[in-house]
Amino acid sequence: MAITVVGSVAFDTIETPAGKRERCLGGAATYFSLAASYFTEVRVIAVVGEDFGANEEAVFQAHSIDTRGIERAAGKSFFWEGSYLENLNEAKTHNTELNVFAAFEPKIPEAYGDSEFLFLANIDPVLQRRVRLAMPQVKLVAGDTMNYWIKDHRAALLEVLKGLDILLINDTEARMLAGNNNLVQAARAVLALGPKALVVKHGEYGATLFRDAASRDEGARTFRAPALPLESVVDPTGAGDSFAGGFFGYLASQPEQTPAAYRRAMFYGSVMGSFACERFGTERLQELTRKEIDDRFNLFRELTHLD
Amino acid sequence: MAITVVGSVAFDTIETPAGKRERCLGGAATYFSLAASYFTEVRVIAVVGEDFGANEEAVFQAHSIDTRGIERAAGKSFFWEGSYLENLNEAKTHNTELNVFAAFEPKIPEAYGDSEFLFLANIDPVLQRRVRLAMPQVKLVAGDTMNYWIKDHRAALLEVLKGLDILLINDTEARMLAGNNNLVQAARAVLALGPKALVVKHGEYGATLFRDAASRDEGARTFRAPALPLESVVDPTGAGDSFAGGFFGYLASQPEQTPAAYRRAMFYGSVMGSFACERFGTERLQELTRKEIDDRFNLFRELTHLD
Repeated sequence: MAITVVGSVAFDTIETPAGKRERCLGGAATYFSLAASYFTEVRVIAVVGEDFGANEEAVFQAHSIDTRGIERAAGKSFFWEGSYLENLNEAKTHNTELNVFAAFEPKIPEAYGDSEFLFLANIDPVLQRRVRLAMPQVKLVAGDTMNYWIKDHRAALLEVLKGLDILLINDTEARMLAGNNNLVQAARAVLALGPKALVVKHGEYGATLFRDAASRDEGARTFRAPALPLESVVDPTGAGDSFAGGFFGYLASQPEQTPAAYRRAMFYGSVMGSFACERFGTERLQELTRKEIDDRFNLFRELTHLD
Repeated sequence: MAITVVGSVAFDTIETPAGKRERCLGGAATYFSLAASYFTEVRVIAVVGEDFGANEEAVFQAHSIDTRGIERAAGKSFFWEGSYLENLNEAKTHNTELNVFAAFEPKIPEAYGDSEFLFLANIDPVLQRRVRLAMPQVKLVAGDTMNYWIKDHRAALLEVLKGLDILLINDTEARMLAGNNNLVQAARAVLALGPKALVVKHGEYGATLFRDAASRDEGARTFRAPALPLESVVDPTGAGDSFAGGFFGYLASQPEQTPAAYRRAMFYGSVMGSFACERFGTERLQELTRKEIDDRFNLFRELTHLD
């Protein structure tokens, strides 16, 4: 089933202990789309500037990602520059230029109208909600957000949460959103805000899936997926968005979103997040095979299963 | 099979967001012994002062723990005072009084001589090595250490590591010991120092078991056990020692220490660590039943297994 994703398509300049790359193709919607494209059909809504050319377009095309919703505007694309020199778990931002993204008004191509799955990547919750309302036919909606929206745009974010089936955020964001440092209590508080499922990402320690009471009545349970202990983390940029792409892409590929499908989706999320870190930007996500993905899924199973 | 453990038996004054307890029975050897006692026979080597009375002795007796190796010395027992008011993951130490522990000379009762398992809790590596050498008959030796010994007593610690089958330490200690921030690389470097297995504890995120090349040739593999997402952490003191007790106690209870037994031992370690946090000091560890332990083991399985 097709996923429509709305979010940023950007250029990133990234420095890590492994080196530096100038103006890699990046942005949450890019990482998400590439990761999800290994599982299902993906359609993007974003805005880019005149610096987004044939090479960038080709990356999406090579994965049959529908780019008709990527608007070309006058000016430059969203640009981010950051480094992870002291701590691979936390980016230090050196420069953010919103450019054409500052005036982003998501436009949904008519051809996207039959998407049954919608992913609201980390953008202004006002825009997330607008896209959600414009796509009433979707049957499952997932989304991401970040500390900035949680702190300073809470009212708009709470409106988004009411319409979400699945929220994917990290530990710090979950604790901040709930105002509670205990993860179990924080998860319960976040689920009370609307989402039926909450995925809390723990970086190198994996991620935990929490389900609401109604889902638990149907056999869903709390589930923890590990992250792969990686010999070499070249660039953690986009690992969370790649997790979301693997997770939601797998769910969308399934005939039914059963509790067992959610658990496998957690593994596929971790799988895609682990691949994303192995090379700079989206390099590794661009060249995967489904066999590599399934081999790593099996590695995750061996890493966690007793027998 | 019987485990002999050498380490501290102490009194702790602990403050957490859940309250404050004065002079609880504590110490690494106490937590370890209680946790391991649910699986196998345990014998302690330690030193206590005149403040260690019938009530404290009774705690060990109630779990059939052999205390003939607990020497009574003139003076007071090791005392620690700490709090976890801002961060449940890291104790703030307010006071440490070594007292009788300052002159600790481990004495091994003859009756301990047939122990096949030895646990060297976190004490001066010179003493750890002395006990190890005095018990040449043991077939499996595990141990713990801490940042202080890693930084300032490295040569003595390296001697201990050469004679260890299993080292259990936390993330920070593993990275410090290896001088490498990447966990996989750090684990390989630590395994090159002697231990055949390394358990790295990640606090609320669980623990990872790394095996050396020879063990991997025999079918052992890297294995990650989760921690239980806990609704309420009353007191994290001793969680790591309780993990070690559950882990090593389970291993010692098995006829063979197969790779599969190591994986189940990781779960039992996490199980005992999670119980330890539920009440102050050793309170929860004192009153468990084997059924509660196995129920929680099954909960860990549900938390991590796809089917």
